[in-house]
Amino acid sequence: MIKVGINGYGTIGRRVAQAVRLQKDMIVTGIVKTRPDYVAESAMHDFRIFAADAKSLESFNNSSLKASGTLEDLISDSDIIVDATPEGMGRKNIETYRKNGLKAIFQGGEDHEIAQASFNAYSNFMDSWGKDYVRVVSCNTTALARTVTSVRKSFGVKHVSATLIRRATDPNDSSKGPINALEPSLKFPSHHAPDLQTVIGNVDVDTVAIKAPTTLMHVHVVSIDLEKQADQKQVMAEMGRYRRIMLVSGKSGLTSTAQIMDMAREMGRSRSDLYEIAVWKESVNLKGTKLNYIQAVHQESDVVPENVDAIRAMFQLMDDEKSISETDKTLNIGKRV
Amino acid sequence: MIKVGINGYGTIGRRVAQAVRLQKDMIVTGIVKTRPDYVAESAMHDFRIFAADAKSLESFNNSSLKASGTLEDLISDSDIIVDATPEGMGRKNIETYRKNGLKAIFQGGEDHEIAQASFNAYSNFMDSWGKDYVRVVSCNTTALARTVTSVRKSFGVKHVSATLIRRATDPNDSSKGPINALEPSLKFPSHHAPDLQTVIGNVDVDTVAIKAPTTLMHVHVVSIDLEKQADQKQVMAEMGRYRRIMLVSGKSGLTSTAQIMDMAREMGRSRSDLYEIAVWKESVNLKGTKLNYIQAVHQESDVVPENVDAIRAMFQLMDDEKSISETDKTLNIGKRV
Repeated sequence: MIKVGINGYGTIGRRVAQAVRLQKDMIVTGIVKTRPDYVAESAMHDFRIFAADAKSLESFNNSSLKASGTLEDLISDSDIIVDATPEGMGRKNIETYRKNGLKAIFQGGEDHEIAQASFNAYSNFMDSWGKDYVRVVSCNTTALARTVTSVRKSFGVKHVSATLIRRATDPNDSSKGPINALEPSLKFPSHHAPDLQTVIGNVDVDTVAIKAPTTLMHVHVVSIDLEKQADQKQVMAEMGRYRRIMLVSGKSGLTSTAQIMDMAREMGRSRSDLYEIAVWKESVNLKGTKLNYIQAVHQESDVVPENVDAIRAMFQLMDDEKSISETDKTLNIGKRV
Repeated sequence: MIKVGINGYGTIGRRVAQAVRLQKDMIVTGIVKTRPDYVAESAMHDFRIFAADAKSLESFNNSSLKASGTLEDLISDSDIIVDATPEGMGRKNIETYRKNGLKAIFQGGEDHEIAQASFNAYSNFMDSWGKDYVRVVSCNTTALARTVTSVRKSFGVKHVSATLIRRATDPNDSSKGPINALEPSLKFPSHHAPDLQTVIGNVDVDTVAIKAPTTLMHVHVVSIDLEKQADQKQVMAEMGRYRRIMLVSGKSGLTSTAQIMDMAREMGRSRSDLYEIAVWKESVNLKGTKLNYIQAVHQESDVVPENVDAIRAMFQLMDDEKSISETDKTLNIGKRV
């Protein structure tokens, strides 16, 4: 039974905590929160809460919520820490984990170099086998890695070009923008291209990212030069073999990210999340070896199953196929509405 | 065991169906859907689906989803229909229900005159006792009725003045606006004032409504002239006695509708709904007999428990206190995170 501590209980941390809790081969030893806010109040029902540091512990002590100690106490009771702290903090935290002989998983906000391997379950599960420090790539990269990998095995991939229309911020955030503008990332390619290469390896990739005023999902317009010719049916059949990819259709009313997230609510998913990457059937088009498709990405949740699988790889608990299958079963991934 | 048919499975219908399903004294005989879309696909798991009419039945027959008949078949198997069809259709539908000797509940989009009573559980439960046709008032009116009633009993209410900053549309709708404007309702008072009077009776009410580019919740700025002097603590204590009102605080991070809806997700509520009206503690202010407060209203779900209670009143199953308590227990209403 792997003892998993969760450092950071924001968008990703709270979801990974719950997903780990559903696994038979791991338990959550506790979660780390900075402030005794409504999220901490909710977390109390399921997890032991640890304050980030002495100052944070004081703010818990001054509130009605009780903390069981600080990050240090959680570390001494855990085999691995899933670090879901804000972007860039992992660089500092890894020293603490290392000193205490703990394994650790970082999220996509950290640099690739922080860890021994970047992780995507479909693309390179075995690269993290037995490793101590692993980084689960970001929501956008996870989405691209999944669908690119799904077509790569059968048709080969020469070049990937993707336009990422990104959500501005998460639904629980009311402080960020833009609220009435489209904001391009002015570096070409955007950081997503090299990031994708950390998990799919030596494939030529270009990405462009545009921030749009929405909180629901990212949308990717993907264009791939395949090595072999294929037709729409063949590509959809390949994608359809992967439970973490969901083929959806405008014909059933799923015409925008609004209805896709509504579908997740109707499916009764925890927090109304959609772990699967939704690919619109109508958008899958081929001209010879040139493949185009459009996918929607629930940025809050698609990396959650990846974190669970990464733990199994790092502790050499089971191979990719078994781990993915186990994770998917517990999270109801791949079941249609 | 009351047999409840649900005509219309949109924002309200699907939620009422699920809430009725959780009650011990009623069952859902089926739901009516027009189209075999993703919502129908999801409904199949829990309910028998009936097509709206012959044409709609044909579209089901041409799809992979099976309908169990049409509205007529559902009617013959039900004691009451909860009509959650689009605004204005109830006027036509009531004739069908009447012909078949069925009771019916309508939603706030219909005129008050369609029914024998308009309904709010806290304000006028007994007005619907034994009635055949009842209308549950709209989400906005339900919210105002709840909080006004909570202070009325102890302090009396001379005048209510409210500014309603309304959400533009529901989260699953990507076709309506405004997306970058504030749109005032140019009738004074807005229709909410007379609507509120249908449930709270002879109180002087003014309302102004402004549509804003958001989908999450409505926000009401309420100003009440009380009959008796009161202080902040007394008012909050009165509001706090009602489970369908939730006092929240910016201090725990709940500073906007974004965090309030996030709290509902963390609470694990079905569809991430919040049935309670959230009143900000900091916003409750008094100058003599002049009370001000701000409340947030989850437009998709606050009327759901009201529909359940209305059924009980119409069949004289139990009194208001017992019914509200039973409904709240099944929907986890009033439990904090």
